[in-house]
Amino acid sequence: MSSFEMIQAAAQRLQGHARVTPMLSSPFLDEIAGRRVLVKAECLQHTGSFKFRGGWAAVSALPQADRARGVLAYSSGNHAQGVAAAAKAHGVAAVILMPADAPSLKIENTRALGAEVVLYDRAAGEDRSAIGQALAQERGLTLIKPYDEPEVIAGQGSVGLEIAAQAKDEGITQAQVLVCCGGGGLTSGVALALEATAPGLRVHPVEPKGFDDVARSLQSGQIQSNAEVSGSICDAILTPAPGALTFPVLQRLCGPGLVVTEEEALRAMALAFLRLKIVVEPGGAVALAAALFHPDALEGEAVIAIATGGNVDATLFQRAISSYA
Amino acid sequence: MSSFEMIQAAAQRLQGHARVTPMLSSPFLDEIAGRRVLVKAECLQHTGSFKFRGGWAAVSALPQADRARGVLAYSSGNHAQGVAAAAKAHGVAAVILMPADAPSLKIENTRALGAEVVLYDRAAGEDRSAIGQALAQERGLTLIKPYDEPEVIAGQGSVGLEIAAQAKDEGITQAQVLVCCGGGGLTSGVALALEATAPGLRVHPVEPKGFDDVARSLQSGQIQSNAEVSGSICDAILTPAPGALTFPVLQRLCGPGLVVTEEEALRAMALAFLRLKIVVEPGGAVALAAALFHPDALEGEAVIAIATGGNVDATLFQRAISSYA
Repeated sequence: MSSFEMIQAAAQRLQGHARVTPMLSSPFLDEIAGRRVLVKAECLQHTGSFKFRGGWAAVSALPQADRARGVLAYSSGNHAQGVAAAAKAHGVAAVILMPADAPSLKIENTRALGAEVVLYDRAAGEDRSAIGQALAQERGLTLIKPYDEPEVIAGQGSVGLEIAAQAKDEGITQAQVLVCCGGGGLTSGVALALEATAPGLRVHPVEPKGFDDVARSLQSGQIQSNAEVSGSICDAILTPAPGALTFPVLQRLCGPGLVVTEEEALRAMALAFLRLKIVVEPGGAVALAAALFHPDALEGEAVIAIATGGNVDATLFQRAISSYA
Repeated sequence: MSSFEMIQAAAQRLQGHARVTPMLSSPFLDEIAGRRVLVKAECLQHTGSFKFRGGWAAVSALPQADRARGVLAYSSGNHAQGVAAAAKAHGVAAVILMPADAPSLKIENTRALGAEVVLYDRAAGEDRSAIGQALAQERGLTLIKPYDEPEVIAGQGSVGLEIAAQAKDEGITQAQVLVCCGGGGLTSGVALALEATAPGLRVHPVEPKGFDDVARSLQSGQIQSNAEVSGSICDAILTPAPGALTFPVLQRLCGPGLVVTEEEALRAMALAFLRLKIVVEPGGAVALAAALFHPDALEGEAVIAIATGGNVDATLFQRAISSYA
């Protein structure tokens, strides 16, 4: 499992490659929330989400000989782009397995970042893992899992190191840190980083209603799954259940979890547009939504929300700002 | 007139108050432009534009006794918000003279930032200067002009210091720096800063078609005016002519000027949304538009464009992204 030392080492390898993203704020958001709101703008990271950090950390950690043979990832979204960009920068091949019905823009983008995209037919019941394993074996590719992977968690944890330093610059040593949570890679990495560097900052995962596997798992003390695996606009964070590696960390350091509605996510996107001038996707806006619209579930004078990604298409973004901005 | 020493002093006073905005990039933009494109994201500055820097620099430079009596500005836009926020943070009064037909959101925002808004009737021919002078005299307010004011130019120049450092971090010592240009406060401040810190970075003002007073002034060697003072979506940079203080600096250090169409500005906004995840207003997008769509007017392997502001309403932003994203 990841450790603080692994996070520090990953941060070192990321230096000069990942962006140190800014911590943004607006008096208008503070007023809505009734406390100071700081937004860590990971949508401004390379490839438009924090996933670039984990991809880079994992690719750069591979032994030279393994790395040279290339890497493999399953993803229709942000992890695909993060791994593709990291592999390209390291001059190695990336094969990304994507469902054939993924949005064509995402397929194009992943290809444009230098990856070889292999499509499979979800509807026809093609088994992604079987295809992936066959490819990996045949070509010697290393699989980079999206969250249940120590080096990926370590890379995402570098966000926590930056939050600790930036919060300190703002004079904040006590606060709740809200993290948009899918499988828990970012959430657990940030929690491990803060445990060591800013113990007054406690992490709370935030999920969309109907996909609150992490909140329920934390509450029950057992890994819980979601009934559905799709059907939310918050596509970036729809994972079936917390990971085997991430859950023990979440259990030890995080919670309780918060849950927001899709409408609240859209309103948060509109306010991020209006007040922070950043583009946030629905799944990347749930933490800010909790900070703004669930003040009674929070305590203290400041809250930090990570805006995890900005890969949203124009139509959905228009829906958010035309309704709520 | 402003000097490099004044810019350094202003930057010192701004430290911990203005944001060091990030320098963003995307391989997709590089491909369109045919060279590396770096975007200095001043839309992420407090109040959504670089104007906060000049406002802060001017308010903080006032002798204590003058500052205590308060400040005055004429503006319906970004300068109003910059001065209002800076005055509030210094605990002094700001009176902003705004046309009664300014967008109500801008009036509300300026008030919400703590300023007293005094409306005048443009249509009825009320004289803004006369009203302002009367108010200033009566209450001892100090007028802070939007660009032809040495401390304002010095504050905007702090953007140039950051660009010099960030370009160096990226290994860039030779490049053209494109600046969205109204009266020339930012453009001249940045040029003065770069002259001293990064002489290989040359500044070019960028303006919208029909409002290219600076480009024409540089070409002719004489201050030229625009035929119209309104009628472009690039409202933030529609000034009648370069300033008496800014023009000599522009003439010595900048040019030639570049001119883009409104459609190019909208396309640049859409690409900034899609590839950089930032919200840019039309007037703040003209420099990026020139970087992307006027490659033949540029030279060298890298170009730096300042995205100067992001204060755009939802309707206009939707128009940009629905047409071009």
